[in-house]
Amino acid sequence: MAFGWIDEQADVRRRAGLGRTLRARAADSPLLDLASNDYLGLARHPEVVEGAVAAARTWGGGATGSRLVTGTTELHGELERELAEFCGAEAALVFSSGYAANLAAVTALAPHGSLIVSDAGNHASLIDGCRLARGTVQVVGHADPEAARKALGTHAGPAVLVSDTVFSVDGDAAPLAALAAACREHGAGLLVDDAHGLGVLGAGGRGAAHAAGLAGADDVVVTATLSKSFGSQGGVVLGPARVVDHLVNAARTFIFDTGLAPAAVGAALAALRLLRREPHRAARARAVARDLHTRLIAAGLDAVRPDAAVVSVRAPSPQTAVRWAADCRAAGLAVGCFRPPSVPDGVSRLRLTARADLSEAQIERAVRVIGDTRP
Amino acid sequence: MAFGWIDEQADVRRRAGLGRTLRARAADSPLLDLASNDYLGLARHPEVVEGAVAAARTWGGGATGSRLVTGTTELHGELERELAEFCGAEAALVFSSGYAANLAAVTALAPHGSLIVSDAGNHASLIDGCRLARGTVQVVGHADPEAARKALGTHAGPAVLVSDTVFSVDGDAAPLAALAAACREHGAGLLVDDAHGLGVLGAGGRGAAHAAGLAGADDVVVTATLSKSFGSQGGVVLGPARVVDHLVNAARTFIFDTGLAPAAVGAALAALRLLRREPHRAARARAVARDLHTRLIAAGLDAVRPDAAVVSVRAPSPQTAVRWAADCRAAGLAVGCFRPPSVPDGVSRLRLTARADLSEAQIERAVRVIGDTRP
Ligand SMILES: Cc1ncc(COP(=O)(O)O)c(C=O)c1O
Ligand SMILES: Cc1ncc(COP(=O)(O)O)c(C=O)c1O
Repeated sequence: MAFGWIDEQADVRRRAGLGRTLRARAADSPLLDLASNDYLGLARHPEVVEGAVAAARTWGGGATGSRLVTGTTELHGELERELAEFCGAEAALVFSSGYAANLAAVTALAPHGSLIVSDAGNHASLIDGCRLARGTVQVVGHADPEAARKALGTHAGPAVLVSDTVFSVDGDAAPLAALAAACREHGAGLLVDDAHGLGVLGAGGRGAAHAAGLAGADDVVVTATLSKSFGSQGGVVLGPARVVDHLVNAARTFIFDTGLAPAAVGAALAALRLLRREPHRAARARAVARDLHTRLIAAGLDAVRPDAAVVSVRAPSPQTAVRWAADCRAAGLAVGCFRPPSVPDGVSRLRLTARADLSEAQIERAVRVIGDTRP
Repeated sequence: MAFGWIDEQADVRRRAGLGRTLRARAADSPLLDLASNDYLGLARHPEVVEGAVAAARTWGGGATGSRLVTGTTELHGELERELAEFCGAEAALVFSSGYAANLAAVTALAPHGSLIVSDAGNHASLIDGCRLARGTVQVVGHADPEAARKALGTHAGPAVLVSDTVFSVDGDAAPLAALAAACREHGAGLLVDDAHGLGVLGAGGRGAAHAAGLAGADDVVVTATLSKSFGSQGGVVLGPARVVDHLVNAARTFIFDTGLAPAAVGAALAALRLLRREPHRAARARAVARDLHTRLIAAGLDAVRPDAAVVSVRAPSPQTAVRWAADCRAAGLAVGCFRPPSVPDGVSRLRLTARADLSEAQIERAVRVIGDTRP
């Protein structure tokens, strides 16, 4: 039968106890959430919700077409201007997701004959961008600027170095200054995915590139998502106007994709404005992460020091990680669980996310549950 | 300078008069819209808008995480159940866009060692899916079941035939019955993208696969978007439960992407329920398209007979097509304009879309403007 071969793979997963199933969340779930990427606690903030509501009422349920046909509303323009200004970039371009933004940026900046140097720990969307791009890909060791420098030295034509700013699994930060120096030494462009940095790192949450003094540079392009700190959906590419103009003309996931829904645009815009008014939210998310880490270590757990709002806790095996997360859930705590094959390094872990709106009592409770359920 | 090479490409475009720029649409635009893909006229329908509003109020601005972590709300489950039931499929899986749904379906159904047979006129997202997939790709002539049959005959392992149901540029329908027969002859799977068929073709808008008697078949997978007939955003894969389970476990654009925003889920669900209550909307969109085509032909224009709701009108050259669309706009009519390189066949055209809510007077006016501005 046509799709019979699928069953073999399903059997392998089932025997290993590693099959994934979807679990629907209730609107009034009593779980303490340390699993979402709602770093600033804005997804259900009344201003963000009303941003979505007002946009849907004014513009409708969808953008109705691709951005180059009918899918650009004035609201899209507003969001792009305010995002660019906030992050200190010359221009911004909004996509239907961060995934689509990364596919666009990597493919459009790596033409035939170019070199892409890509960190081994990069997000799946950057990796897929590398696979789709016409350039040659060289994968270098994780967070290794010296290896990146060497790789760039092997190539004459256009080159771009691609890295997450904060790696999604362990929450560690990339050595941005050293990466930028390596790029400049070789005239290469730097493309960084600030999905987990925007809203958390930098002055008032302006992101990792801003914090590293790279905002507005003519050789730096930043991508990000509107689905984490901004509590919405969508992606953005921030960079020189020539790069944004190039994406409008050449990026397939921009040209052949329906524009981001107005409600998502409105929610992200409301979150951005709220963050500008309440810049301390960014620092608070970082402080919660540090507090969480300190308490986990004090409880004897193998937690990785956080550079942003993600705190990773090592588990002995994929199976124990899955069981640990399930035990936390049974005790009222939602945590993420990353394990092979979705983590390439083979290390299984719980993934905890700090939120700016977690109270000390909630942090304490979370650490207690994680400690009590340890394998 | 790192991104200096971009300027050369921009110069070439500028000299050819083919640079693209974004034009923001006003909420109260006076233009008559024959450019959007809002086939059923639902994007601004009060019920669809209120679907988005209620979902944002209940669930917040974003899904807050990937579908396997926190990004599956009960509303996502509801939409998936109702979409599967409506289309006659065993199961459904919702994505952040139709683009992401296509990348997921093609890559997950074409493992290492498999063959993908792909129509030369397929949408960019299917093509990118082919590029990302581990299988070997064989591109066959447009709408040529005999060529597809031959290609499938060259391969022993798993194989999948990939096609749009309604091609986005010319609006012509794929020969689904013949394609399915070719697949069955060789034990291959059939994967069809019903982005432009769902809501327009089949009984009450159940789509092209349903119309062809293929709904619910264990060797057929259908993808679609929620951004056209359903006036929202998002994508869906409809098929056997084993395929949906496989996507949950293996599709990168599902696992590593934030769940579709609640407002988009709510808008799509409202549109679906409205269409079930008012099934005549689908037939009306088709009737408007036929009427538009008849009148364009009567006016001496080179229009392609529509199989769904897209009506394509040939233009002599890319430059005249761009000018023609601009002249229509100046006369109060928004039309799409497709020209190389975004159409692979090198033919430039205006692309008109029928909407179920266009009046006869509006259709007449549109045809008059197109005739008056012809190059
Ligand atoms: C580092 C990183 N980049 C990109 C994305 C994709 O963003 P989106 O979910 O908006 O598609 C994610 C997660 O979702 C991510 O963790
Ligand atoms: C045939 C076809 N498939 C897929 C897509 C992508 O869907 P979405 O815009 O929801 O990403 C489109 C257009 O946008 C399309 O025309």
